[in-house]
Amino acid sequence: MASTKQYFSAAGKPIRCKAAVARKVGEPLVIEEVIVAPPKAHEVRLKIICTSLCYTDIIVWRMKEFPGCFPRILGHEAFGVVESVGEDVDELKEGDSVVPIFLPDCMDCVDCKSKKSNLCSKFPFQASPLLHRDDTSRFTNDEGETLHHFLYISSFSEYTVVDVVNVTKIDPEIPPNRACLLSCGVSTGVGAAWKTAQVEPGSTVVIFGLGSIGLAVAEGARQCGATRIIGVDIDCNKFEIGKQFGITEFVNSKSCGDKPVSQVIIEMTNGGADYCFECVGLAALVQEAFACCRKGWGKTVVLGVDKPDAQLNLNSFEVLQSQKTLTGALFGGLKPKSDVPILVKRYLDKELQLDKFVTHEVNFEDINKAFDLLIQGKSLRCVIWMDKL
Amino acid sequence: MASTKQYFSAAGKPIRCKAAVARKVGEPLVIEEVIVAPPKAHEVRLKIICTSLCYTDIIVWRMKEFPGCFPRILGHEAFGVVESVGEDVDELKEGDSVVPIFLPDCMDCVDCKSKKSNLCSKFPFQASPLLHRDDTSRFTNDEGETLHHFLYISSFSEYTVVDVVNVTKIDPEIPPNRACLLSCGVSTGVGAAWKTAQVEPGSTVVIFGLGSIGLAVAEGARQCGATRIIGVDIDCNKFEIGKQFGITEFVNSKSCGDKPVSQVIIEMTNGGADYCFECVGLAALVQEAFACCRKGWGKTVVLGVDKPDAQLNLNSFEVLQSQKTLTGALFGGLKPKSDVPILVKRYLDKELQLDKFVTHEVNFEDINKAFDLLIQGKSLRCVIWMDKL
Repeated sequence: MASTKQYFSAAGKPIRCKAAVARKVGEPLVIEEVIVAPPKAHEVRLKIICTSLCYTDIIVWRMKEFPGCFPRILGHEAFGVVESVGEDVDELKEGDSVVPIFLPDCMDCVDCKSKKSNLCSKFPFQASPLLHRDDTSRFTNDEGETLHHFLYISSFSEYTVVDVVNVTKIDPEIPPNRACLLSCGVSTGVGAAWKTAQVEPGSTVVIFGLGSIGLAVAEGARQCGATRIIGVDIDCNKFEIGKQFGITEFVNSKSCGDKPVSQVIIEMTNGGADYCFECVGLAALVQEAFACCRKGWGKTVVLGVDKPDAQLNLNSFEVLQSQKTLTGALFGGLKPKSDVPILVKRYLDKELQLDKFVTHEVNFEDINKAFDLLIQGKSLRCVIWMDKL
Repeated sequence: MASTKQYFSAAGKPIRCKAAVARKVGEPLVIEEVIVAPPKAHEVRLKIICTSLCYTDIIVWRMKEFPGCFPRILGHEAFGVVESVGEDVDELKEGDSVVPIFLPDCMDCVDCKSKKSNLCSKFPFQASPLLHRDDTSRFTNDEGETLHHFLYISSFSEYTVVDVVNVTKIDPEIPPNRACLLSCGVSTGVGAAWKTAQVEPGSTVVIFGLGSIGLAVAEGARQCGATRIIGVDIDCNKFEIGKQFGITEFVNSKSCGDKPVSQVIIEMTNGGADYCFECVGLAALVQEAFACCRKGWGKTVVLGVDKPDAQLNLNSFEVLQSQKTLTGALFGGLKPKSDVPILVKRYLDKELQLDKFVTHEVNFEDINKAFDLLIQGKSLRCVIWMDKL
């Protein structure tokens, strides 16, 4: 168990360690020695035990323009242990097992105190390459360069500094290579079914896009008691994979002939699905999802990230008369500090399946293999261990 | 009280009576003698006591193309008494006080049995100019013409035939000229706040368009305990009128300078409203409403009817990351047979205000005055009495 190990602490001092640095857009990461400053007030320094690769890392790694920026330490799905804490940190202490989470949770603002929102008002989520409170970086190197953070986390480093609003303490009983999945992708999918859509038992669910997020939606919907979980993808192999997560039927959206995929779903479901989830990131697919969710109570949840200016076109009268609902789910509508520990418990109670998301595991020096596997569609989640396997 | 009067019954026989017939697009209605057939199975014939004019009557009266069609008996907000019943009618009997309602409620299909939908699957609402079960009309005249129905109701006639799925029995204690308001417009507005949005106590509400529907939303929001109810209209006089229905603040959308009205609302509400209602029928205003409802939990409800092909453009990423919700409300999300009697009781218990919606009352022969008043924006609801005042 992670919690039983003893970790080096350099409280108050900079740490020299290895990090995988993204130096140029789309080029392999370079393992370099970096200097990680001690945490400032309200921050903690984490020793990353393992990290997993999420597609968002790849999207931003490929971006020439902001929010892409270089040099930078990417990575935001991880499990770690608190190495040291800055001033005014009460909720965490050295040795705590944690998952860093990109979505801030201050537990104090009107949103964090409300049951209805997970969008912290005090620290609004932004695509900043720096830390929240003073807009600075904790990463430098011997060349005097400043390295940018990513999503407030930067887990592709043996050590990283994170604000307490971005750290959730969890039960150390969960293995590191399962805990890291709850840091972003799997939580997002499971949460979208559980919290945002509030999928009801016996319902019919359609999931557009069967990557890790879509499969996590299936897992969440299965847990909520959905009886039909229809996966839509352009890759038929996804059906076999999807069955392991609760997918019961499959539609290849490239094989629908002249019919829009929404029409195929409407026919399959005798009028439309109770819940539709768009996990690809295409506004046109959100429109298809909205079209095939059921009149009266159908809900469409947007999870996929399209281009910043992508427009979603809906027929105004259809919105009125169908009484369908459209909404979005950032981090699956979950509140990082209160909901993620519940998912950890569900995993430990063998209710939530996480194991099958981990298709590959590599050592830190092979981190670029993790990129190749995800880009080639060969992996769901590839766990990257900071210490050798 | 309406219930204590005795009404003529011609059960099983046609009735000759007066109706206001729309003969040509946009031209004054003509009071003519029509023949109203006896009700077929699952239908009832109603003696209309009074009817009120809703803007939907005017919209369709002005339509050259389908769903506009002539000759036709318009009118769909009314109070009446059952004159006779057809075969297989169990839930209504001669003398019952009723409001006809355009939205079918069969009480038997999956939607009607569900708490989540008011969109009957057995008799889906359509813009048909005929009755549901056999697609025929019950109106003829001595010239052998067939006159079209409107919204399954056609209340601009002393007698009309309506399917039982379009009739709600109500407590006869409510005066006819209050009951008729619950037949469509006021119920739609009140229901949108109460049932669709489920406005919570202490919340902030924005209403775009302060016609009867928008004012009814205000009345519903006030009843739900909203503390700030901001009205948006291009006519400043609407603020004084709106105060009577709970409007607490007013924004003239023509006087916002360079700012979009959504920006003005965001500033007034320190980040956006909890609930926004679009009651004008402009897709562009729905976009403004969505823009100024609050991140995290803001709900936008579409009530206004735009042109059939009007497109609503939303930014896909904004939908995802703001976690706002967009939905529509047909008949305010109310179930005609179970929810309208609740509104009647609230009126009788002096909780729901209906009186101030009735700004004018005219005799049947003056029905075209009701059109003029509404078109000129002088009336909220003009009640048309079939028997002389």
